[in-house]
Amino acid sequence: MPVAVLGATGTVGARLVQRLRGHPWFALAEVAASDRSAGERLGDRVAPDVHLHPDDAARKLGTLDGPLASHLVLSALPADAARTIEPELAARGHLVVSNASAFRADPGVPLVVPEVNPDHLTLLDAPGDRWPSGGGIVTNPNCAVAGLVTALAPLHARFGVGRVVVTTFQAISGAGRPGPAAADLVDNVVPWIGGEEEKIAAEPRRILGRLMDGAVTPAEVTVSATATRVPVLHGHLESVSVELLTPATPKQARAAWAEFRGPEGTADLPTAPAIPVEVATEVDRPQPRLDRGRGDGMTVVVGRVRPCPVFTLRFLVLSHNLERGAAGAALVNAELAAARGRVRRGLS
Amino acid sequence: MPVAVLGATGTVGARLVQRLRGHPWFALAEVAASDRSAGERLGDRVAPDVHLHPDDAARKLGTLDGPLASHLVLSALPADAARTIEPELAARGHLVVSNASAFRADPGVPLVVPEVNPDHLTLLDAPGDRWPSGGGIVTNPNCAVAGLVTALAPLHARFGVGRVVVTTFQAISGAGRPGPAAADLVDNVVPWIGGEEEKIAAEPRRILGRLMDGAVTPAEVTVSATATRVPVLHGHLESVSVELLTPATPKQARAAWAEFRGPEGTADLPTAPAIPVEVATEVDRPQPRLDRGRGDGMTVVVGRVRPCPVFTLRFLVLSHNLERGAAGAALVNAELAAARGRVRRGLS
Amino acid sequence: MPVAVLGATGTVGARLVQRLRGHPWFALAEVAASDRSAGERLGDRVAPDVHLHPDDAARKLGTLDGPLASHLVLSALPADAARTIEPELAARGHLVVSNASAFRADPGVPLVVPEVNPDHLTLLDAPGDRWPSGGGIVTNPNCAVAGLVTALAPLHARFGVGRVVVTTFQAISGAGRPGPAAADLVDNVVPWIGGEEEKIAAEPRRILGRLMDGAVTPAEVTVSATATRVPVLHGHLESVSVELLTPATPKQARAAWAEFRGPEGTADLPTAPAIPVEVATEVDRPQPRLDRGRGDGMTVVVGRVRPCPVFTLRFLVLSHNLERGAAGAALVNAELAAARGRVRRGLS
Amino acid sequence: MPVAVLGATGTVGARLVQRLRGHPWFALAEVAASDRSAGERLGDRVAPDVHLHPDDAARKLGTLDGPLASHLVLSALPADAARTIEPELAARGHLVVSNASAFRADPGVPLVVPEVNPDHLTLLDAPGDRWPSGGGIVTNPNCAVAGLVTALAPLHARFGVGRVVVTTFQAISGAGRPGPAAADLVDNVVPWIGGEEEKIAAEPRRILGRLMDGAVTPAEVTVSATATRVPVLHGHLESVSVELLTPATPKQARAAWAEFRGPEGTADLPTAPAIPVEVATEVDRPQPRLDRGRGDGMTVVVGRVRPCPVFTLRFLVLSHNLERGAAGAALVNAELAAARGRVRRGLS
Repeated sequence: MPVAVLGATGTVGARLVQRLRGHPWFALAEVAASDRSAGERLGDRVAPDVHLHPDDAARKLGTLDGPLASHLVLSALPADAARTIEPELAARGHLVVSNASAFRADPGVPLVVPEVNPDHLTLLDAPGDRWPSGGGIVTNPNCAVAGLVTALAPLHARFGVGRVVVTTFQAISGAGRPGPAAADLVDNVVPWIGGEEEKIAAEPRRILGRLMDGAVTPAEVTVSATATRVPVLHGHLESVSVELLTPATPKQARAAWAEFRGPEGTADLPTAPAIPVEVATEVDRPQPRLDRGRGDGMTVVVGRVRPCPVFTLRFLVLSHNLERGAAGAALVNAELAAARGRVRRGLS
Repeated sequence: MPVAVLGATGTVGARLVQRLRGHPWFALAEVAASDRSAGERLGDRVAPDVHLHPDDAARKLGTLDGPLASHLVLSALPADAARTIEPELAARGHLVVSNASAFRADPGVPLVVPEVNPDHLTLLDAPGDRWPSGGGIVTNPNCAVAGLVTALAPLHARFGVGRVVVTTFQAISGAGRPGPAAADLVDNVVPWIGGEEEKIAAEPRRILGRLMDGAVTPAEVTVSATATRVPVLHGHLESVSVELLTPATPKQARAAWAEFRGPEGTADLPTAPAIPVEVATEVDRPQPRLDRGRGDGMTVVVGRVRPCPVFTLRFLVLSHNLERGAAGAALVNAELAAARGRVRRGLS
Repeated sequence: MPVAVLGATGTVGARLVQRLRGHPWFALAEVAASDRSAGERLGDRVAPDVHLHPDDAARKLGTLDGPLASHLVLSALPADAARTIEPELAARGHLVVSNASAFRADPGVPLVVPEVNPDHLTLLDAPGDRWPSGGGIVTNPNCAVAGLVTALAPLHARFGVGRVVVTTFQAISGAGRPGPAAADLVDNVVPWIGGEEEKIAAEPRRILGRLMDGAVTPAEVTVSATATRVPVLHGHLESVSVELLTPATPKQARAAWAEFRGPEGTADLPTAPAIPVEVATEVDRPQPRLDRGRGDGMTVVVGRVRPCPVFTLRFLVLSHNLERGAAGAALVNAELAAARGRVRRGLS
Repeated sequence: MPVAVLGATGTVGARLVQRLRGHPWFALAEVAASDRSAGERLGDRVAPDVHLHPDDAARKLGTLDGPLASHLVLSALPADAARTIEPELAARGHLVVSNASAFRADPGVPLVVPEVNPDHLTLLDAPGDRWPSGGGIVTNPNCAVAGLVTALAPLHARFGVGRVVVTTFQAISGAGRPGPAAADLVDNVVPWIGGEEEKIAAEPRRILGRLMDGAVTPAEVTVSATATRVPVLHGHLESVSVELLTPATPKQARAAWAEFRGPEGTADLPTAPAIPVEVATEVDRPQPRLDRGRGDGMTVVVGRVRPCPVFTLRFLVLSHNLERGAAGAALVNAELAAARGRVRRGLS
């Protein structure tokens, strides 16, 4: 199936291009980026540390408002651009699988993690004239939510999650290019990331929510988040205290994670990891540099699971912000849509 | 008044030596360290980045088990050495003001922050034959507790503190010499510090506790802590969510901190900062490198005070781990003892 | 004497404002910056880690093209702006002491380090109608040249310097705001700084050159430079191999540095350090973080002086890029000009 | 062919174990380490960030003085241990391929880089009774020499190398475990590595030397080195100025590198990279994090080739200190020995 990638010159877009090479189901057919890159070779516009296959580097970049032949569009656009371009494409009948935050709260747009809530895809079937058949937008969560919600999901399913307090240690690459200044992150931590805490509070409620009558009823999960930036290249680490509605021991939680595989068929998606959540047994793990690469960056790593004197359990969770939190997340959502028969070759 | 410093060659001990130079009340009279340094010049045994006054560098190091002439002994010994040496000195009639963790839970040993619980010093007056008159041990909190408990104290006094969830971002210098390996902290965070979380849970209960009938009744404060090490030289940053027994807005909390000065007379101690708790108003502060030096390292900086959807308030707190959290903490405790007439010139 | 500071909102300009507070000779009278800051409070436009005295923070910023009342103008403008604005001010009769690179190669503009070539100031006396009496531009060297040339000067005076190979380790703050991205300097070194190597090759020839017939004859010194950026906040470290025309041992070189004080009167300039060049004796020094602060950032630190199997000697040299290499350098040049009777109170 | 690995628990030894898995010629048969690890599982004694195949992790560690069945022994021992153990093994008839510095200057021990001086292997054939037939020691250069000498070799062959000035930027992992303290490398560079500069001066002379009458005549190359440690995990970067006996332009040098392949057959060794020296064309490369992985860490990357005003050319060179500089270097030396018929299955 042919695929278009929008925003192909950025960190996430270029990673999508890399991940599509050799993909068993999809073939990259079109790349596009903002007007100032249009007509140039993709390889001349990506960051110097991105190694593209020569055939991909040689692709000519199209414009964001031009027609696309592929039904499936993977969008790595920034939120501002996404807000206008993605609905236009959906209105033309494209299935837009987006990494942007623009529509994550839109009741008609599924916010999906395949292992957690693949059924939310059916939001696309809502009757009405918003989008023609086959058109629509599917999104994945914020990079700091991806690991958290994947770790919470097995606990929520088995014990029920009530209140959550989370402090994040977010990597530099989560801020895109050029990202934070070195002057701010040598011998320092910056305890603020604009807009991030609101997303961490809101998105898990929707992802863990229940589909009823064609709409998502948010889960009654209350998240209090503090987001910080640390001098780490990739991998968001999070310190979590969680209240479980049915009490559980660390051992029971570890069992819930170890047994978690997501709904039937999820593990067969090409980009889905064999093990969605791994539990580290060492006393000082997960650590960003050592653990972010597990499962090709798609495995979420949990560790230091202890009783919490204030709630039920405490633990740390790590996920690769560019893979599980962005490019891999969008791609596996596209695979889910394809597996459920929602992707066509072309528009007509 | 003459003072002896034990463990003078380490990071904290050397800082005590520096802080004693030009001190208005105390005069450094004796320095001692472990046997392998005994007889050597202090300046030859401190770390290469410690600048001592030439007169201090030239001091000869005594042994830890030799007799000391000064009544007041400042101890920067590691916990193991402190466990045997400090009680021996107290038994000989010395007042040992210690930075070690060895006796922080001992019911007869005051665990003191002058702005918070100076009255706990009277634990030294407990009748009995443990120590002769004038002898005893006084301790300051763990470096990750010092900032936290100073920030919690004004809230506790005004609104009552119930449950607390805290995640720390601790600096390298908190681990002493040589400390963490660079290989562990380049492009990484280590989410574990052995023994630290237990101290963070226990010590605030005692410091915020009430003195009744010659003993401390711990405060009913429950702390859930996660301790991590980050690539920062000095300054422990902490992300805190707190439940207040009487609801309070961020504005009320900021007022409580701004008005906090500790009991009468505390601010007159030479090492006490004019302002114990400052509230940063910038959206992204406190930051370790930018804010750790306030009040000569003795001011605790609070910032990002927001409502907490799970408890009452969320905020960040920063304190200099070597000053407010160690050397400055011990010194100001010695000053408090002196101000209350508990320090003599010599033993007899 | 009143002083104006141009470019007062940048790293170097703000440091000039700080250094002028309490200055024994100069009083800050005017601050100016680019149009988009004009009319605002200085304190609202400087970087968040700059602490200004409240009176300085409250100063209103003027525009760069407005009239200035002070005869003496300290310019921290970037090269582009300096190229047009500084000659205009000089033409109006101002003495512009500039940190910019724009006129460092101009034969009528002295490029001065007070300890090395204060006599070059007389270039300002060149007859002709370029600038009215009292008007002119004085510059200090590039931040990577300041330490190098100060270390070479005593060797050049005593033994003659021929060929020099230098590799720099330059700090982040040398690149201004926002400076290099953290993504480029975590677990990395960037071995290129645009335009820097040319300056390092050219400026020492002029500074070490001889004044003859009202012009500078460059020194016959050949410098081969490689410039790199490393994850250090402040302090440029340089590895130097030098050919001396008269052979010298490390001991003789250390003596030349130890005895170096610059021409009579230089040490009396308020911002000049008591010791221009210190020789570190430890085997592993100078190190940027440990040694950049010597002499209030104005002392250049040399270390590891060894015979060079290829030339005569090898050594490392460190200097604070913001002090000896920028703000302090400009200020001490202004002091030199004042000491030599070249600064007036106002224009007429 | 069976292989034993000594010092298998260290950084280099464990990397050898990893590289031997799936090796086309060699099969890991025995692992050994110091007495305190003997009898334990290899996987329990390696650093936590080393991922071993479960079969390798389960291997039991032997002692260093026990008998070994394999003729070929790969030694990752530290120099002290190597000095006594390696000659004992050679005397028993083992071919010891060592990464240690102990015997690099020994006239009877080949110091080899396969692309540069594979013929030096015949030093093992020296008549005499030092070692029985088939016994001997083969070494690879110091990790800071490996990249330098590989970059110099094509220049030396084509133009002749005279004098060289080199400043290194060495990675943390070059210092082994635990390596430098984080306190020394946050916001800092350490311009000294004990013993390193002497090795960088001496080893290239021997490797570039000529084999005559069964002995190596050192090349008339004079190297002046300054060695520093920077906050980089892996990859030694070096700034080089080189005098060529026959003048050459940067273009000619780039051609020499591009065409360099080493003697016939070298590229067929399984661990040898297809391209020994790559020339980066970007203005700011090579950079440690971006370029250390080329050719599976075995390709040396040269960049910024410019004329040198003092000598002939200047450039930067980068090589992976653990691969091209240690584990890969030893392994490819073993492959070279095997290709030349010097490796047997067992001792008899």
